[in-house]
Amino acid sequence: MVVFFSVSMSLDGFIAPGSLGELMGRQWMELQAWVFPQQFFRENLKLGGGGEVGRDNDILRETYERTGTSIMGKRMFDAGEQMWPEDAPFHTPVYVVTHETRDPWERPGETTFHFVKDGIESALEQARAAAGDRDVRIAGGGAMILEYLNAGLVDEFSIALSPVLFGSGVRLFDGVDESRVALEQVRTESSPRVTHLTYAVRKR
Amino acid sequence: MVVFFSVSMSLDGFIAPGSLGELMGRQWMELQAWVFPQQFFRENLKLGGGGEVGRDNDILRETYERTGTSIMGKRMFDAGEQMWPEDAPFHTPVYVVTHETRDPWERPGETTFHFVKDGIESALEQARAAAGDRDVRIAGGGAMILEYLNAGLVDEFSIALSPVLFGSGVRLFDGVDESRVALEQVRTESSPRVTHLTYAVRKR
Repeated sequence: MVVFFSVSMSLDGFIAPGSLGELMGRQWMELQAWVFPQQFFRENLKLGGGGEVGRDNDILRETYERTGTSIMGKRMFDAGEQMWPEDAPFHTPVYVVTHETRDPWERPGETTFHFVKDGIESALEQARAAAGDRDVRIAGGGAMILEYLNAGLVDEFSIALSPVLFGSGVRLFDGVDESRVALEQVRTESSPRVTHLTYAVRKR
Repeated sequence: MVVFFSVSMSLDGFIAPGSLGELMGRQWMELQAWVFPQQFFRENLKLGGGGEVGRDNDILRETYERTGTSIMGKRMFDAGEQMWPEDAPFHTPVYVVTHETRDPWERPGETTFHFVKDGIESALEQARAAAGDRDVRIAGGGAMILEYLNAGLVDEFSIALSPVLFGSGVRLFDGVDESRVALEQVRTESSPRVTHLTYAVRKR
């Protein structure tokens, strides 16, 4: 059982534009350009058949298949609630760290959102218990990922490093506690569109 | 004739600590950890024989051998003037962009520093003229590299992405004009210590 995250990042360290209004803008599309043509992406979002089937596609599928449960922050959930199709693309329990009380929200296709009010460690405990022999993914957003990373609760992570510069936006590692987090390179793979970097997290 | 830069960068985008006093500190040593054991590094700084001879070493040597002339900013020169050995590790003409008037400074071992007062384009013109059939390297620091990048004067660059997080310091791409600079992945290679990323710069 591994706790991991997996995100696309610009070469200058950004994982999202500065405002939700820019989602689907040029920068975001370039950041995610490696994802859209993949067969797995099309299949998972029910966009129809076809699509690429190389290593990028395998990595998307492997990331999905290893994920037993996901954890996300309230801001990511709020944005996703408006953007995901009814059949949300998780197909597992999802734990949303929030300050609001809300009953579990079941979606068609086996995604159930559980709202956790008592903090990130409780959310992780619940996510671990429900993940079976698969892994727990910290889905996002950036602030949630950093909370888990700084708390020493992330075992490894993967970054799809896209050949784009943002200049501004949401930085993945903004506020990282560098005095606690050491990294070890696990694997690097590149395709024409993106470089996949995997690191193990070690305590200093 | 290619105009390029080549730097080591932390996974969160930093190429140097925030102050000169931290040079040679833990973060800097981790950032450059892939360089120190290499045979070429030892040989070029006359630290004695031995050292590693794998792909990392080849990349250091290739970068050195392709460089006909270098350009650097005044702050990098000021720091280097105190740190380089008398036999400075360039062994080519070096053009220092500055506001001060100063006669060329010849060092043993074929390094001559020329001080250029009339701007980055003039420095590049002089560097090109002196580079012969080799390339022009924008050596640093970060601000100088960004000036050339934003001016559309860089053809390609290489980043040795080190498995370390800085949290603060000098960001390579701070202030990049993302509306003008597009990137294309050229090559990715990794060793156990570092991932070498090469990009071509395209105008948008």
